Amino acid sequence: MNVIILNGKRISADQAGLSAGDRGLLYGDGLFETMRVERGAPLFLEGHLDRLEEGSRVLRFASLPEREELRAGVVAAVRSNGVYSGYLRLTVTRGVGGFGTPLARLDQPSYWVEAREHPLDLRRYDRGISAATVSIRRNPASPLCRVKSLNYLESVLAREEAVGLGADEALFLTTEGDVCEGASANLFIVHKGRLITPDLTRGPLPGTVRRWVVENAARLGFPVKERWVEREEVFEAEGVFFTNSTWGPFPCVEVDGSVIGTGKPDPITRQLIRQWRVMIEAIPERGDRAPSE
Amino acid sequence: MNVIILNGKRISADQAGLSAGDRGLLYGDGLFETMRVERGAPLFLEGHLDRLEEGSRVLRFASLPEREELRAGVVAAVRSNGVYSGYLRLTVTRGVGGFGTPLARLDQPSYWVEAREHPLDLRRYDRGISAATVSIRRNPASPLCRVKSLNYLESVLAREEAVGLGADEALFLTTEGDVCEGASANLFIVHKGRLITPDLTRGPLPGTVRRWVVENAARLGFPVKERWVEREEVFEAEGVFFTNSTWGPFPCVEVDGSVIGTGKPDPITRQLIRQWRVMIEAIPERGDRAPSE
Ligand SMILES: Cc1ncc(COP(=O)(O)O)c(C=O)c1O
Ligand SMILES: Cc1ncc(COP(=O)(O)O)c(C=O)c1O
Repeated sequence: MNVIILNGKRISADQAGLSAGDRGLLYGDGLFETMRVERGAPLFLEGHLDRLEEGSRVLRFASLPEREELRAGVVAAVRSNGVYSGYLRLTVTRGVGGFGTPLARLDQPSYWVEAREHPLDLRRYDRGISAATVSIRRNPASPLCRVKSLNYLESVLAREEAVGLGADEALFLTTEGDVCEGASANLFIVHKGRLITPDLTRGPLPGTVRRWVVENAARLGFPVKERWVEREEVFEAEGVFFTNSTWGPFPCVEVDGSVIGTGKPDPITRQLIRQWRVMIEAIPERGDRAPSE
Repeated sequence: MNVIILNGKRISADQAGLSAGDRGLLYGDGLFETMRVERGAPLFLEGHLDRLEEGSRVLRFASLPEREELRAGVVAAVRSNGVYSGYLRLTVTRGVGGFGTPLARLDQPSYWVEAREHPLDLRRYDRGISAATVSIRRNPASPLCRVKSLNYLESVLAREEAVGLGADEALFLTTEGDVCEGASANLFIVHKGRLITPDLTRGPLPGTVRRWVVENAARLGFPVKERWVEREEVFEAEGVFFTNSTWGPFPCVEVDGSVIGTGKPDPITRQLIRQWRVMIEAIPERGDRAPSE
């Protein structure tokens, strides 16, 4: 059975319980981060902790557990479960309290970390996935777009709708009809050797892999433009890819039943995926992180 | 200490724990209902269970606990805690499961009921409250507007913002700028002897007390119009009131620092409040519900 790190303590996952009075449960009043673990190391740990901290400001958390404590919890969850290549989730809630309590007084956040082994199916990168536009629209004016909060029902419903339409991922438009992101991934399009992605004012989550692409693609010779993206641009693209922590960049070869480009992952997306693998393979093999520990 | 009814079992509130893998906690993937208890009876119990059922359809719950079981849980929570005049909350989540699981397979929902004594401060009805327009806008196109889900962060932030502006309640506009509702209440305006409230396509929650007003005001001689409401209409109103399960109808005499009408609750709002009290006083005093039990 898995071990969870709950407020700093190691607890068997089947016994880890959160108070029924925790605001995470009452109002979805909390934040989470999902990270990929490779070679026993959580990728972009500091970037995820930065986003969590930024999110806690947007949600006006009176306090957040110390970064050192969260880091230690993440490492403990990975080691306790002997995760070498897998998945990790860190959740922080505003703790116990009623609706009327001023937020400044809620200074006892709860957090927990779960981690489990889960190697990826690499065929996804070769084949590419399909996406379907869903009916729910993101509201770019909402501060909730900017944070990875426990108010995640839009993504839950979007994913279900996309799968019901026979697709792997959802494509969210905004209330104004422009392109936003996937249910749990950012979106890029490849056009004339350039990359285009909705800018952050258009409502996509500021993804950690989105940022990695923005910072690294230019170096590889592919300038990235962050701007308003029309839906038609997706269909006219040479390639489309999504990004998230679980998969890094992954190609999308079909949207709403229309083939994108040649129907195979385009060369620029493939080059980015290679670069992603190079980054992972550069993580030092450290005995102290090996599953045998 | 309070007793909570958790999945049919009586549990001391300080021991009631939800699995850290429950989707209520992971994604705010669940629904809740807040009810007023008077004379030991939950008001509009069937209306709340109807809304819960409708919400479970919108969120595509594969199953919901039987209505009989939920009803029994509500009654048990009220009795176990000897609540005579107070507050009750029923929460139902989609249960334990990961993001990728098809919703049809998640057929083990969790539920719990908490109840506590909490008599109202009746001065609120005489004085009226103040409201402030908040920066977050409701998105009427989202199905989440129609359900009382655990994705309640907009309301949390709206209330905090309103209180920061010196007001008691928030006033939500929609993404299109028309009037929607409060942070946790519906809104009505009184104009020329008529009542006006945003229609349900404009994004307000279908409130149980809103419905009581719509169904009863006409009988009292005040026709109700459900339609698009401009923000200016609030300032030009003779009276404004909010409605929710905790308070029934309650007057609002100031919005964004502007006095509404005479600055005192208007006669029509006062008549509705009287009618509300009459309804409560008509609940039979039943020994089996008294706090002494
Ligand atoms: C809605 C949404 N958009 C984008 C992303 C991608 O963010 P990241 O690259 O940090 O995983 C996620 C992550 O799960 C997400 O939930
Ligand atoms: C957002 C919102 N609107 C309106 C209401 C009023 O609904 P009801 O009258 O059923 O309490 C509530 C209830 O808390 C609410 O949360």
